[in-house]
Amino acid sequence: MTADPQPPDWGRLPIGGSPIQCRIADAAIELFYARGAVPTTVREITRACGLTPGALYNHFSSKDHLLYVLIRDVHLQVTEQIAGVIRISGTDPAAQLAAMVRFLVSHTAGAKKQSRVANREYTLLTGDHRDEVRQLRQQIRDQFTGPLMAGARQGVFTLPGRNDLDAAQLTAATISNMCVHISQSTLQNYPLGSPELQDRYAIMALRLAGASRTAV
Amino acid sequence: MTADPQPPDWGRLPIGGSPIQCRIADAAIELFYARGAVPTTVREITRACGLTPGALYNHFSSKDHLLYVLIRDVHLQVTEQIAGVIRISGTDPAAQLAAMVRFLVSHTAGAKKQSRVANREYTLLTGDHRDEVRQLRQQIRDQFTGPLMAGARQGVFTLPGRNDLDAAQLTAATISNMCVHISQSTLQNYPLGSPELQDRYAIMALRLAGASRTAV
Repeated sequence: MTADPQPPDWGRLPIGGSPIQCRIADAAIELFYARGAVPTTVREITRACGLTPGALYNHFSSKDHLLYVLIRDVHLQVTEQIAGVIRISGTDPAAQLAAMVRFLVSHTAGAKKQSRVANREYTLLTGDHRDEVRQLRQQIRDQFTGPLMAGARQGVFTLPGRNDLDAAQLTAATISNMCVHISQSTLQNYPLGSPELQDRYAIMALRLAGASRTAV
Repeated sequence: MTADPQPPDWGRLPIGGSPIQCRIADAAIELFYARGAVPTTVREITRACGLTPGALYNHFSSKDHLLYVLIRDVHLQVTEQIAGVIRISGTDPAAQLAAMVRFLVSHTAGAKKQSRVANREYTLLTGDHRDEVRQLRQQIRDQFTGPLMAGARQGVFTLPGRNDLDAAQLTAATISNMCVHISQSTLQNYPLGSPELQDRYAIMALRLAGASRTAV
């Protein structure tokens, strides 16, 4: 297996944002990543991108709204990019699963700050925003459920417990979680987008799915 | 494999706490679980346990200190109880690993609110408290690394990638993470402390470790 040696373009935040909105978003991601969204102030965000404090409100109604937009857009970008990965991965469920895992691991490692903010701070969202992001997270898990069920039907996978939808959903949730919750110390041990890190996670995912391959 | 049909005693919070401290802790866990620690106020916690607002400060110096004590103590209890599980699990690394996973899954499901608060809200801690809890989390991962390395040396496990400490640490982090980050929907699908849920996670862990067993 090989991987692109160049870090891919993970997509600008926010989706469809103006240059100034992107500057605000970049500064916010840095601060939210380093210190968490709760203690970070609007003043710190605007100072970090050379704007007056009030300028943020021309673009986002509040810090909470900015956080919501960033988290939502990271999830949307990941969903879209996984869909692209599935489209180019052929029809073998094991190859699809491995490719999806390699992508998600490369995103967690390569777009580390965006990924951490999206996967750590989303619990701060409330109301409709929380519901929307939970649905987006479920959508990503469902993307994994597809190849797992297809593989179970084709005899390519033997899912843990029983070869049913319940097992596919549990395995999908476990695999997508493990790809986004990679510990800081693991990320530090592997170079950016390391093919070896992707290999190890692909092996772990295929093992979880019960792939019938000696290479696993 | 069997499991105790009664929910085990997960330990009182805080460790060594007075009855009134335990009442405050119980109320805080409920609120932190339901709404997150950030929006929860001291007044809401004291109201929930029938105390005057100021009464909390006789026992904890602040809401943040209470949060720290709760998160620290859940981690300490889990570490202690895993140590107990290891001691009664014999010398086979696969049996040890399966028993540790069964325990951690039963904790995540059975002590759901404590577990969620500890594993979701710990990112809010700062300074020395954050460092201390990070060390406790590393200690739990290290408890998993032990049997994985022992199994790799004995030929019981074929770890993902290579049979080395790096692979053991990666697998340990993945297994301990998957046992504490069980999705709400999965927990809702299985009864409290369900042996079947424990079975599935034990199977997944043994697969990740590359256990040489047909039952896996």
